[in-house]
Amino acid sequence: MTGPDDRGESRLREAARRFSNWGRWGPDDQAGTLNFITPDLVRAAAGLVRRGRVFSLAIPFGQDGPQTGFLRRFNPMGFMLRDGGDTCAGTTPGAPEGLGGSDDVILLPTHAATHWDALSHIHLDFRMWNGVDCRESTSLGARRNDITAYRDRIVGRAVLLDLPRALDIPWCAPGRAIAPADLDGCAERQGVEVREGDVLLLRFGHIAMCRERGEWGDYAGGDAPGLGLDTLGWLHERRVAAVASDTWGVEVRPNEIAWASQPWHRVAIPQMGLCVGEIFDLEALAEDCADDGVYEAFLSASPLPFTGSVGGPINPAAVK
Amino acid sequence: MTGPDDRGESRLREAARRFSNWGRWGPDDQAGTLNFITPDLVRAAAGLVRRGRVFSLAIPFGQDGPQTGFLRRFNPMGFMLRDGGDTCAGTTPGAPEGLGGSDDVILLPTHAATHWDALSHIHLDFRMWNGVDCRESTSLGARRNDITAYRDRIVGRAVLLDLPRALDIPWCAPGRAIAPADLDGCAERQGVEVREGDVLLLRFGHIAMCRERGEWGDYAGGDAPGLGLDTLGWLHERRVAAVASDTWGVEVRPNEIAWASQPWHRVAIPQMGLCVGEIFDLEALAEDCADDGVYEAFLSASPLPFTGSVGGPINPAAVK
Amino acid sequence: MTGPDDRGESRLREAARRFSNWGRWGPDDQAGTLNFITPDLVRAAAGLVRRGRVFSLAIPFGQDGPQTGFLRRFNPMGFMLRDGGDTCAGTTPGAPEGLGGSDDVILLPTHAATHWDALSHIHLDFRMWNGVDCRESTSLGARRNDITAYRDRIVGRAVLLDLPRALDIPWCAPGRAIAPADLDGCAERQGVEVREGDVLLLRFGHIAMCRERGEWGDYAGGDAPGLGLDTLGWLHERRVAAVASDTWGVEVRPNEIAWASQPWHRVAIPQMGLCVGEIFDLEALAEDCADDGVYEAFLSASPLPFTGSVGGPINPAAVK
Amino acid sequence: MTGPDDRGESRLREAARRFSNWGRWGPDDQAGTLNFITPDLVRAAAGLVRRGRVFSLAIPFGQDGPQTGFLRRFNPMGFMLRDGGDTCAGTTPGAPEGLGGSDDVILLPTHAATHWDALSHIHLDFRMWNGVDCRESTSLGARRNDITAYRDRIVGRAVLLDLPRALDIPWCAPGRAIAPADLDGCAERQGVEVREGDVLLLRFGHIAMCRERGEWGDYAGGDAPGLGLDTLGWLHERRVAAVASDTWGVEVRPNEIAWASQPWHRVAIPQMGLCVGEIFDLEALAEDCADDGVYEAFLSASPLPFTGSVGGPINPAAVK
Repeated sequence: MTGPDDRGESRLREAARRFSNWGRWGPDDQAGTLNFITPDLVRAAAGLVRRGRVFSLAIPFGQDGPQTGFLRRFNPMGFMLRDGGDTCAGTTPGAPEGLGGSDDVILLPTHAATHWDALSHIHLDFRMWNGVDCRESTSLGARRNDITAYRDRIVGRAVLLDLPRALDIPWCAPGRAIAPADLDGCAERQGVEVREGDVLLLRFGHIAMCRERGEWGDYAGGDAPGLGLDTLGWLHERRVAAVASDTWGVEVRPNEIAWASQPWHRVAIPQMGLCVGEIFDLEALAEDCADDGVYEAFLSASPLPFTGSVGGPINPAAVK
Repeated sequence: MTGPDDRGESRLREAARRFSNWGRWGPDDQAGTLNFITPDLVRAAAGLVRRGRVFSLAIPFGQDGPQTGFLRRFNPMGFMLRDGGDTCAGTTPGAPEGLGGSDDVILLPTHAATHWDALSHIHLDFRMWNGVDCRESTSLGARRNDITAYRDRIVGRAVLLDLPRALDIPWCAPGRAIAPADLDGCAERQGVEVREGDVLLLRFGHIAMCRERGEWGDYAGGDAPGLGLDTLGWLHERRVAAVASDTWGVEVRPNEIAWASQPWHRVAIPQMGLCVGEIFDLEALAEDCADDGVYEAFLSASPLPFTGSVGGPINPAAVK
Repeated sequence: MTGPDDRGESRLREAARRFSNWGRWGPDDQAGTLNFITPDLVRAAAGLVRRGRVFSLAIPFGQDGPQTGFLRRFNPMGFMLRDGGDTCAGTTPGAPEGLGGSDDVILLPTHAATHWDALSHIHLDFRMWNGVDCRESTSLGARRNDITAYRDRIVGRAVLLDLPRALDIPWCAPGRAIAPADLDGCAERQGVEVREGDVLLLRFGHIAMCRERGEWGDYAGGDAPGLGLDTLGWLHERRVAAVASDTWGVEVRPNEIAWASQPWHRVAIPQMGLCVGEIFDLEALAEDCADDGVYEAFLSASPLPFTGSVGGPINPAAVK
Repeated sequence: MTGPDDRGESRLREAARRFSNWGRWGPDDQAGTLNFITPDLVRAAAGLVRRGRVFSLAIPFGQDGPQTGFLRRFNPMGFMLRDGGDTCAGTTPGAPEGLGGSDDVILLPTHAATHWDALSHIHLDFRMWNGVDCRESTSLGARRNDITAYRDRIVGRAVLLDLPRALDIPWCAPGRAIAPADLDGCAERQGVEVREGDVLLLRFGHIAMCRERGEWGDYAGGDAPGLGLDTLGWLHERRVAAVASDTWGVEVRPNEIAWASQPWHRVAIPQMGLCVGEIFDLEALAEDCADDGVYEAFLSASPLPFTGSVGGPINPAAVK
């Protein structure tokens, strides 16, 4: 029960307690809800490939991205180690004329563009997923629950819930908290069922809104539509494997509990062990689903396996 | 005909001329042989998922990687923006006790770990794929033929050719040039057919060799088994979509034509427009194929879409 | 003679011809006007230390800097390799309790904060200082005229010209071109003489203006007061060793010749071989000079000797 | 008293207690022993400039440096943002032909080349200099005792102690602990006096040894000559302002107390507040001192003022 003075703290802690999956897959598990995806589900998901059309769900990784410095995140930078100018200049001693090449280096905050959060990304009460002490995440990276735990786990069935289309609005307004009823209503209207082991792709229309206005603006960390705290139980019950959205942070902003930054995350990631994806570009896929009325797809979205990393940049492929 | 004095130059140029695909998919094409993959082939490939088992084909991205500075490439580095120590120290002003998180930045040469070469990676006669002037690759990155051209193109059928298993040897010896007959013999012995639009996964056993000896040694740029120049015609004829191997550079080293660094690449990439993948860890997949005798799989291996980048780090998922 | 249609091109080329120092110190020279500083002048400059007070002329190197992405420059970033959180967490295996340390890495565009331009920084007609082909600057860095040529050359007499104080204004207005007469008038009013081998510190009051308004705004690349093209002859005649200012680019912006970006630079650096310094914080020094009426100081401002680098980050020490 | 079993712990703690300067310059001091340098001493030091010859004491900052990955440190890397190839390619839209430029970015571990340790660099009993909690050093950098505290403090008298020349040996052997008597003997033989506020430059000949053998080898973190623990009292008594050497870590390696990594540092930095400099190239200066018999010089060695940084890369200028 939330008293008038605890600023939502008891509500958060109750959700944390009720929806915890600690120990569910053993004391050493680092994959969390991705365990809901079984080989059978992977095989069944392959059956969703009916036309062979591939959708990339990543935004471009580059200087045109949405980051503006919040949380020290910046847009990906590239530096050339060799380029065509060097080929022309004949830089390499002894190299035959005109035979050169290009090479480059990327500097990338793991949460800057399309990515999965690792289960070490969020701490509650000094703990990360499965009760691991947050001190396992040091300057050397995370020794437990790093992104490599996801390296071969994110292949399966994706279900797109296109909220604004179901609601007949261009996009969900920033600040709007999506409730379980919204999710149910959307699925029903789309004629799709959310099942155990699904990767839920939530389109709030937030990237569409940015494109419409011609700028990212405060996309990275500003007000946004997103999941409300009530959805935690809904997701827990349905045993979804992962949730991703077209927003910076999946959950609604301003947050429902001001006391805790990103309160939905604090239950979803360290307690439920939920795989959370952000900054997914769902526009082309949503257009296609609206066209053919099929809101499910095969999804392959394995993160780069950076040792110790707490986020996983990805280029998810949805195949219909 | 190659004269005694031209150091293989005429052989290289003849191959470049004969196996060129310039213009085949229009003057503006940037995807090259990936055009061989059609929606029909993608759909058919999905049918290869029989057990729902996923194999990650990436090596770990981290300081334990094979790079030693050759071509200025180094192993991926990670830097923490926040970590568990900060959570414990209560660094963030106003943040409730114990509520923190981890965040990080990655510095990654695009060709350092498992990756695709972009079609701007290699220049011959000041040109990259489809005749594009190499000066389109500048300090700002490649304006044509960058890795984003591959963003939704690498999903389809993979065929594993496990050369050492077919030859009953632990691994192909460094310096051994693999010939078309080796490829044909291997496919025949494995009972698998190489078809148009396939992604060819070539296991030379080179990573197995490194693991056996307990160190990468000169893996990055040293002597290695690999494709000989004669395979260019074989690949061209079969219209394969992509070729990847468990070596640093797919082709045999020392190179067959000393005059041109990586001569096979100079035909395959700028002339054929072949999608080339390197540093693939095929060990677990090969083990499984040897077990069940099935050497084909569904493959999803889209690169991160770094704008202007000339290489594409990946975590390929092969699904059987 | 400048015709009505050449957009200043002939004026630029005439200045380039008249004020060129190519060959003056031999065909292999890479230090340019710093050659005007002789051991005798260094010794004499040491005599300017009368009170032993040291002024750091650098702005803070950090995220609060003026860069906003123009020319791909960003503010310096720091990443921790170890920190106090690790000490507390006892990260290092076997390390005694409480014994730890901190270590870090800096990512720094060389022209982002207080710095010297290297003589390879600016090209005119495909040439850098002393006639060197601009292709000597490749993706590997500059093989000629890199910043290491300055490594032991920037110690000597500094003269501060505090333009706004001499003009009794709070700061020179953005867009104001400073003319030779302004410099002469300022020196006269301050009672200081500009001599051969001097490092000229030009205070336009631009940093003061930014501090007054509480933000950098368009400091990096926007409108600014600065030297007009007429000063090139004045500087050439006086044989100054170096010129530095409290602006982003020393010369006036908008530029006097729109056709050529930074036209003053195109003569000063590749033709005269002038050592140019930017983003110097002269506020405390200027205050002190106004107090004691002494506008000269001993200066030590050697850049970090990055091999091949085209800019030199510095923390100049002026000593009075 | 050190018992047989405490592995030197009591010796370390006694030194820490005896040579502590905590509070000596107030509870908020962050400059430590640099407080010994007074304006009078700066003025007097300027009088040491007799010939006007400048010596740069930095090693080249680049890929040829000594780092091999120990403590995650690597040699400085440079990446070009623009170069001469771009000028030739005419990359910039609208830019006149031949008018271009070069620009670059540096990635630099602060302790990788010639540098000062900041007073936040070393922790003993969870404390840094002046009793500050080590948790003031977080992923955001050090909030106390960062390198900016040194920004205008390192100008003064330097005394070179050339140990191997005084001992008539080519270099001090790796593993040799230098004792107070060695320092006294060297100063006496050189006819130079160590005074309050001096920056002590200690030449062990270690860089000379590396040059002789043609490689850095294990310079970074391997066996080295260096100060023994007994010198702590000697330095404390003499009130030196700073100590720098031509080795990776000033103190002898293997360390005299195996229990604590770098035990001399653990007293010198967090307890005494001593300014410590490393990887100084003293070869040219030492040659000159041997020639003229003058072992003192004016020194200017301000670090780049990176906000929050725990090390200060420098190009020290010694002037005689």
